[in-house]
Amino acid sequence: MRAIANPSFLIHHHHQPAVASAVFRSIRHRLPLLFPPSIIKVSAHSTSTSSAELDNAPTGRSSSLASPPVQLDIVQQRIDVNPPKGTRDFPPEEMRLRSWLFQNFREVSQLFGFEEIDFPVLESEALFIRKAGEEIRDQLYCFEDRGNRRVALRPELTPSLARLVIQKGKSVSLPLKWFAIGQCWRYERMTRGRRREHYQWNMDIIGAPDVTAEAELISSIVTFFKRIGITASDVGFKVSSRKVLQEVLKRYSIPENLFGRVCIIIDKIEKIPIEDIKNELRSAQLSEEAVEELLQILSVKSLAELEEKLGSSVEALADLKRLFALAENYGYAEWIQFDASIVRGLAYYTGIVFEGFDREGKLRAICGGGRYDRLLSTFGGDDLPACGFGFGDAVIIELLKERGLLPQLNPNVQNIVCSLDQNLHGAASSVAAKLREKGQSVDLVLENKPLKWYVMMVLGGVFRRAARMNAERLVLVGSAEWQNGMVRVKILSSGEQYEIKVDQLE
Amino acid sequence: MRAIANPSFLIHHHHQPAVASAVFRSIRHRLPLLFPPSIIKVSAHSTSTSSAELDNAPTGRSSSLASPPVQLDIVQQRIDVNPPKGTRDFPPEEMRLRSWLFQNFREVSQLFGFEEIDFPVLESEALFIRKAGEEIRDQLYCFEDRGNRRVALRPELTPSLARLVIQKGKSVSLPLKWFAIGQCWRYERMTRGRRREHYQWNMDIIGAPDVTAEAELISSIVTFFKRIGITASDVGFKVSSRKVLQEVLKRYSIPENLFGRVCIIIDKIEKIPIEDIKNELRSAQLSEEAVEELLQILSVKSLAELEEKLGSSVEALADLKRLFALAENYGYAEWIQFDASIVRGLAYYTGIVFEGFDREGKLRAICGGGRYDRLLSTFGGDDLPACGFGFGDAVIIELLKERGLLPQLNPNVQNIVCSLDQNLHGAASSVAAKLREKGQSVDLVLENKPLKWYVMMVLGGVFRRAARMNAERLVLVGSAEWQNGMVRVKILSSGEQYEIKVDQLE
Repeated sequence: MRAIANPSFLIHHHHQPAVASAVFRSIRHRLPLLFPPSIIKVSAHSTSTSSAELDNAPTGRSSSLASPPVQLDIVQQRIDVNPPKGTRDFPPEEMRLRSWLFQNFREVSQLFGFEEIDFPVLESEALFIRKAGEEIRDQLYCFEDRGNRRVALRPELTPSLARLVIQKGKSVSLPLKWFAIGQCWRYERMTRGRRREHYQWNMDIIGAPDVTAEAELISSIVTFFKRIGITASDVGFKVSSRKVLQEVLKRYSIPENLFGRVCIIIDKIEKIPIEDIKNELRSAQLSEEAVEELLQILSVKSLAELEEKLGSSVEALADLKRLFALAENYGYAEWIQFDASIVRGLAYYTGIVFEGFDREGKLRAICGGGRYDRLLSTFGGDDLPACGFGFGDAVIIELLKERGLLPQLNPNVQNIVCSLDQNLHGAASSVAAKLREKGQSVDLVLENKPLKWYVMMVLGGVFRRAARMNAERLVLVGSAEWQNGMVRVKILSSGEQYEIKVDQLE
Repeated sequence: MRAIANPSFLIHHHHQPAVASAVFRSIRHRLPLLFPPSIIKVSAHSTSTSSAELDNAPTGRSSSLASPPVQLDIVQQRIDVNPPKGTRDFPPEEMRLRSWLFQNFREVSQLFGFEEIDFPVLESEALFIRKAGEEIRDQLYCFEDRGNRRVALRPELTPSLARLVIQKGKSVSLPLKWFAIGQCWRYERMTRGRRREHYQWNMDIIGAPDVTAEAELISSIVTFFKRIGITASDVGFKVSSRKVLQEVLKRYSIPENLFGRVCIIIDKIEKIPIEDIKNELRSAQLSEEAVEELLQILSVKSLAELEEKLGSSVEALADLKRLFALAENYGYAEWIQFDASIVRGLAYYTGIVFEGFDREGKLRAICGGGRYDRLLSTFGGDDLPACGFGFGDAVIIELLKERGLLPQLNPNVQNIVCSLDQNLHGAASSVAAKLREKGQSVDLVLENKPLKWYVMMVLGGVFRRAARMNAERLVLVGSAEWQNGMVRVKILSSGEQYEIKVDQLE
């Protein structure tokens, strides 16, 4: 290894980007074209030939004498370069953020001993049809496929989970602790910047009847928040139990089969005027007295007050008290609060329900979940105690932006390898291969131009690329050094430069 | 820390699984039910209420006097517990394999300095419609959405990539080196166990006109194969260039706009009888002489022979020679061979094409790719030199199975934490929280039964779980130790047991 005193050909990468950029642009248009452009511009009257037609073509020579319409390879069209309405592309900078988020979801899930699962993004429509006026039902992204089957892009992951649990039957030992990160779709009107797809992190526990399961789920979300820099002063969880409502319905002899529908109505309590809520409850056969009592109960914000109203013996109260006691043990008591108005918008919840919210009140719910002990039987399976949550990828990113907590995620590569002579690209390839074999990441420069272009264009571009990719070092393959089996190395953080034998590169 | 000489309550986890299992099954059916089962069995005549109907409900009290049909929460139905035809669930064991595969795709891509991207799985149908008789076109999984837009589940990733590159325009600096791992869909007839969805790893280089780019792509696939234990005696790459065909077409004055269609026909050469290939070529206006010459050329298996037939000056030959020379530099020469019959089934390739195959000839192509310098202009953008490959998740898994190379992937967790008394679950939760704060993964036992059940059921179950999850140690919270701030630890590999202060657990 030998330091280079004054390597005149090494220009500093903070210089000349504008010149290099201009040259780069100009060469784009001098690339060899396989066809002259005129050939691929064709009229809209072109006809296609399906493979079926081809298969049925006559087998004799006469077919080539026939005069079929001109066949065209490629139809030029101006496509919409944006992704379909309500969907997203993930160019590298967006993908880094998504990968960072998913990695945190995964690591937290694994910290809690959960195993990852997934399901098809396209499911039978029947899986999602529940007759309880749910918003999710009205927004189903559904189709008829080529085999005339009704299918839907999944709006949530829980029904697929239930399907898989029933399918697995007794072959799995309980409790199951499973997590998934999957894309979900809702055909919403495109208001307030809401998209039609999002990714959702789910954690579910199947086979644990006790509120210890809900406590564990909330703990995992708190762990996730802490990990990404969100504190109890940023977010909290509103917690309640659907058994509170159930108790009220029972006292007014309201049929239990109205339960899901009443929950769906009440879930809208912060979104539509209270008079509309009342009317919906009335039209669901609740008496005026029941409606008033229900709304009274929903305004309760403490367990003491709830106990005062419902008495100390109700099941809902015991569950909630245990959950709040466990929160003390876990150390997240300051994150949760009782709020009877929380019921969640899915028909299938049966017990504890919870919702993560931002304390400034600017954003929609960050996540939500609860116990759904009766879901499996709605699909014809044997019920199992179950609880879980869904945590979307949209609101959390908005929150991180608001709080200035978005991580700085840069691309990075350890080495940029570049030949200084067009005849040395093969040598540079072998250097890249050797480094990669040692586990070193390498961005190999693929431009291959004569040396006279080098200083102005390639190396200028290479330095820009090195800066953008946060490369650690530049490995240059030049003919003088290469004859001695050497390459030149420039450490980009310090500017240190030296020559080294290829085999000694680590 | 103090060793326990003979802790009689600690039973070895290789014993009693059958008893424990039986007990576990029986408790499933003794779980408290929120509703008696009869309540949720409802008839198929139930009616639903959409939110639109609810919104339009009269606002006066009279509405509750009306007699609407009985509203039902939940419709019991026997759903098909299998995923839709041609799709897959990923229960934990399948998911571990998928994650392992994807992790290898990612790590290799990053070793080569590529950045990850993604696109919507649902795209406009127009993006995939190319009029060249491609199989992929006939198998498009397409729908009309609720807004009467023609959409399709993407059959491949390259058109979305092209769309994104056009959209980004001059805001990105070339060359782009991007990779993606995404689910793709084809509505195929369900023969030979082929599925309708698969995941595909893509790597693409945009803006590099030289064959150095193709050499780099093949090197990355070879690196991937080596990494997962596949050698050059298991698989190889057949390489050719579409410029070979182009040369032949030129010599017979065949219009260049027939090029894509001829490629699609020739791609079927190993799938359908040669007479059918000939007939298809004839019906594509090729003369008998041209057909014969084409088939002659396609049978060529060496560059020397190709040079003999076409002369040394053709562009195709120069590219191929350079690629084979670079393969020597990279060190993967033994993996690749020239084969003029390789053209690939996508219309848009323009230069080098390649295909990974298993040397036993049992499986379909493992991966395939090539140069597509003219794709962007078919969407109305400015062309840029481009090449890439697709590598599916199905054939490679079959190959690994055949070769006995499937990895052993087990679930694992560092700690199982369990309370020995129902009053100590809160204590166990705090122990779990402390361990997780230190980055230790913890599977917290959520069963909460009286101590008399403990030995037979819970601990039996816990040991089975510990074995299944490959736990490193068991942390037991019992009342005698807990009074002193201690827990009992059992190291599961050695059987070593000791007591330790909670704060000293690392």
